[in-house]
Amino acid sequence: MGKRFIGIDVGGTTMKLGVVDERGRLLHKAETPTPSDGQAGLSQMAFQARRIAGEAGISWEQVAGLGLGLPGFLDIPAGKIIRLTNLPWENMPVKDHLEAELNIPVAIDNDANVAALGEAWSGAGAGLQDLVCITLGTGVGGGVITGRRLVHGVSGLAGEIGHIRVEEDGALCGCGQRGCVETVSSATGMVRLVKEAVAEGRKSQLEVQVREGTISARDIFEAADKEDPVALTVIDRATDALAKVMSILSVVLNPAAFIIGGGVSRAKERLFSPLRRAYARHTLAHAAAGVRILPAELGNDAGLIGAAGLTAKWETLG
Amino acid sequence: MGKRFIGIDVGGTTMKLGVVDERGRLLHKAETPTPSDGQAGLSQMAFQARRIAGEAGISWEQVAGLGLGLPGFLDIPAGKIIRLTNLPWENMPVKDHLEAELNIPVAIDNDANVAALGEAWSGAGAGLQDLVCITLGTGVGGGVITGRRLVHGVSGLAGEIGHIRVEEDGALCGCGQRGCVETVSSATGMVRLVKEAVAEGRKSQLEVQVREGTISARDIFEAADKEDPVALTVIDRATDALAKVMSILSVVLNPAAFIIGGGVSRAKERLFSPLRRAYARHTLAHAAAGVRILPAELGNDAGLIGAAGLTAKWETLG
Repeated sequence: MGKRFIGIDVGGTTMKLGVVDERGRLLHKAETPTPSDGQAGLSQMAFQARRIAGEAGISWEQVAGLGLGLPGFLDIPAGKIIRLTNLPWENMPVKDHLEAELNIPVAIDNDANVAALGEAWSGAGAGLQDLVCITLGTGVGGGVITGRRLVHGVSGLAGEIGHIRVEEDGALCGCGQRGCVETVSSATGMVRLVKEAVAEGRKSQLEVQVREGTISARDIFEAADKEDPVALTVIDRATDALAKVMSILSVVLNPAAFIIGGGVSRAKERLFSPLRRAYARHTLAHAAAGVRILPAELGNDAGLIGAAGLTAKWETLG
Repeated sequence: MGKRFIGIDVGGTTMKLGVVDERGRLLHKAETPTPSDGQAGLSQMAFQARRIAGEAGISWEQVAGLGLGLPGFLDIPAGKIIRLTNLPWENMPVKDHLEAELNIPVAIDNDANVAALGEAWSGAGAGLQDLVCITLGTGVGGGVITGRRLVHGVSGLAGEIGHIRVEEDGALCGCGQRGCVETVSSATGMVRLVKEAVAEGRKSQLEVQVREGTISARDIFEAADKEDPVALTVIDRATDALAKVMSILSVVLNPAAFIIGGGVSRAKERLFSPLRRAYARHTLAHAAAGVRILPAELGNDAGLIGAAGLTAKWETLG
């Protein structure tokens, strides 16, 4: 029997668990509410890990490791939570605690990194050595993989590509800088640009959704299908800004592929075709040659699969 | 007796050879003209490698590997020269040839990468896991190291940071793009900016050198010491552009240090103090925290030491 790995993708309200095999294939998954208390969270993770192994019909001896994807500020090598983004878990040595409790190797990493690792292991990047995963959602997140290894950097901040500045006097970003790609190419950024255009009196079918406060990235892509001029302009600007960032990443990292996930990527070709055109326009020909721009394949499972991969040493496998 | 490694830094006119120990310390070095004929080059490298081992007083059995730093377009994993920049060596399987001839492992890499590896092994970056080396000379070159490993990318182009664009309508770069950091922060770029300022009628002590065609980056830094306004403006612009690139690299890679080498770096604090100020201004505080900006330490020996390191697997040592 092959080894099995358990991944837990810890979110602010629910934790998603999965059991995967040595090739990163998801065999079984489950979901459970995240306790807001840290100690209860530890007990719950240990309990649920054993439980999902049982549900998947495997013995605990077959489980070769457990990985956690966590949103927030971590000491990754030590396996400690410093503090999390949407949960009051603080200063918790999760690795030590769960290893003692479960008797298997435990590793942790941040949510953007485990999602990238999932796609690299058994998603759109399977088989590739060098890739960059970009998540377009509320923000613009990233995960960088070189030689099949995740790049963390000295304090675990590598891959924060949403904060590359693309517009000199752009909008104020949550990080305090102006004109970060996140202010233009995230769902939030695109919605902001539509609102601004409407406020400036530009004609758009999106006026209703703006007025009612329901406007989403999805509405913008749908309006673009109907040739709405504001929607088209905003999509052009979002893809152009993202392509500039990708052109920079191409000369720095020379990845084989960019894998684009997150809510905005559900627009499929309505996002990908302007993005590919803009990338070709902005990137040195020899750095762009052969580079693929691919949709993420694992959706919401990327995080738990990648988390499971943290202890799998799959990068050294064939 | 410890293992020894030989490095050869192949230049257009001379090849530099060195013998280093397992910690990357240079024990002995030599220099010899580079034959323009490729076959003669191969013979010469094999002959000189044996010869320098003899000169260093070590037996051939102690030599655990040979590495070459080559300027040009290579197939690094296969150890083949495709074509070189300043030499008519083409389509040469150097690794296979030299391994058969010398009976030791041989590896090749490009000159910017081996210089970065040298600094990472036993230079300014010794002991650091993650760093970016930047060479400011005729152009702006780079080498990226993450987790003590050199990042190559899918076609060996990683680290070409000189072609990150920093000025929207900047000067035309050799690569065909406009406004690459190389057009502003290299020695060539700084000289160009001084010439343009003088041509526009701005007062400068550098007018003489511009007229006589002798102006160099060194002259610019010397004029800045005397508060020459053109020199000060050009240095500000060069360091500001480079700092912008470093701020991007900080969110993408989160290195522990930037190591700056090349001719321009000989200006020492006249370069480093405005560069550090500009970096602090342009970089997200949490990404800049603790990041060091250091002068390269190995000078012209970085390439041969790093080349020697290609087969040393030092990244797995303590």
